[in-house]
Amino acid sequence: MSADPILAPHRSIRMFRAEPLAEGTIERLVAEAQRAPTDATGQMYSFVRVLDRARRRRIAELSGDQQHVLDAAEFLVACADLHRLERVLELDGRAPGEYPATGLHFAVIDATLATQRLIDAAEAIGLGTVCIGGILNGVEELIDLLVLPRGVLPLFGLCVGWPGEEPVARPRVALASVLHADTYHELTPEAAAADVAAMAAITRSGDWSSVLARYFAVGGTMEEREPALRRALERQGFAWQ
Amino acid sequence: MSADPILAPHRSIRMFRAEPLAEGTIERLVAEAQRAPTDATGQMYSFVRVLDRARRRRIAELSGDQQHVLDAAEFLVACADLHRLERVLELDGRAPGEYPATGLHFAVIDATLATQRLIDAAEAIGLGTVCIGGILNGVEELIDLLVLPRGVLPLFGLCVGWPGEEPVARPRVALASVLHADTYHELTPEAAAADVAAMAAITRSGDWSSVLARYFAVGGTMEEREPALRRALERQGFAWQ
Repeated sequence: MSADPILAPHRSIRMFRAEPLAEGTIERLVAEAQRAPTDATGQMYSFVRVLDRARRRRIAELSGDQQHVLDAAEFLVACADLHRLERVLELDGRAPGEYPATGLHFAVIDATLATQRLIDAAEAIGLGTVCIGGILNGVEELIDLLVLPRGVLPLFGLCVGWPGEEPVARPRVALASVLHADTYHELTPEAAAADVAAMAAITRSGDWSSVLARYFAVGGTMEEREPALRRALERQGFAWQ
Repeated sequence: MSADPILAPHRSIRMFRAEPLAEGTIERLVAEAQRAPTDATGQMYSFVRVLDRARRRRIAELSGDQQHVLDAAEFLVACADLHRLERVLELDGRAPGEYPATGLHFAVIDATLATQRLIDAAEAIGLGTVCIGGILNGVEELIDLLVLPRGVLPLFGLCVGWPGEEPVARPRVALASVLHADTYHELTPEAAAADVAAMAAITRSGDWSSVLARYFAVGGTMEEREPALRRALERQGFAWQ
């Protein structure tokens, strides 16, 4: 797969130059984000731009002391948002329905489509970005900090700024592992071993499986995050029995 | 917000020319998708490329008789996928944890980031795309059709092909409605009215609120989709109490 790349190459930037973006850049990027596809014309997302330094510092701490959250010129929190459209309905005298699973599905997708379009636009003009999944470590306090109403769920953070490093692109699994023809094909042991070998360069230890284990095995980060995220989903109206 | 656009303008294409993509195009686009950010190096997504005509026809029917699902040169189903990485762990003798909410969160985000990057790349080379949320209308049969194992959830379909129409870009709500500074600001009645007016052009009736109501009010499409999606989430391992 050595075809010419089409978009600016993505690599997550974790060291930023101390230089603000030109006036209006964030607005220009959010306008690009708004052009992303949206289900049912709903535009089920919001971006919270964190300008206040104390609030930014607290989010950096909550996310596991990530210095780039503080250093990036801009920091956005991408949120799934059903609240805004339900308010449009209510102001028009209509009652929103009850669809926590379906609402979560489409709002997370809408918000993420918009954010990736923002990332592609930012990288096209030479900016660097990194997504911060770690905001989930403090998701309940984050909801308070950003004063998010019911119907709004923070998904991930996004640092945007001028790159202060030029990291090499990190490896990925084989294209054949992610692309299936007509029906899902099971990863063979040989293909899994090839993916583990290809991904070795992403790790310090040289063992991708141990990196995955730190997150996804019993006792890993994903399990640690689970109780708080469930409480947050309940509180924000995205839980069902 | 009349700043110059950065990326190719997105507009959903629902009429495609009967012309295949050049050999290798889908692989090139999926390679671009793979460059998208991914949480925890997990790459929690799969694309199922639907080549078989009968299977494609059934998906078009399930999605509400959407002719473009049949007519587009290519049709992909974007899936959240925790199964593949859990298989890597298991082949290495490790036990995956239990994190249905957190897994759903990150896998939907990962899959959607990758798909939007694919869309941006496709549009950059002149192709047209449209996302098909309607696959959720038949989500349980779709899981059977694509033989998706537990841990894999179909999110939405994506048509890719040569545009056979040149629609005008559809309107969006005001930038100020989706961009918040430090804390979430409630949409004022005036701002809501302005958004409804701006969005009128997206509708046949001229009334965006009634379009929203068809999906999001009591008795709307979102509520209709809810029971099947909940069952699919349960079956695929993404439900919790």
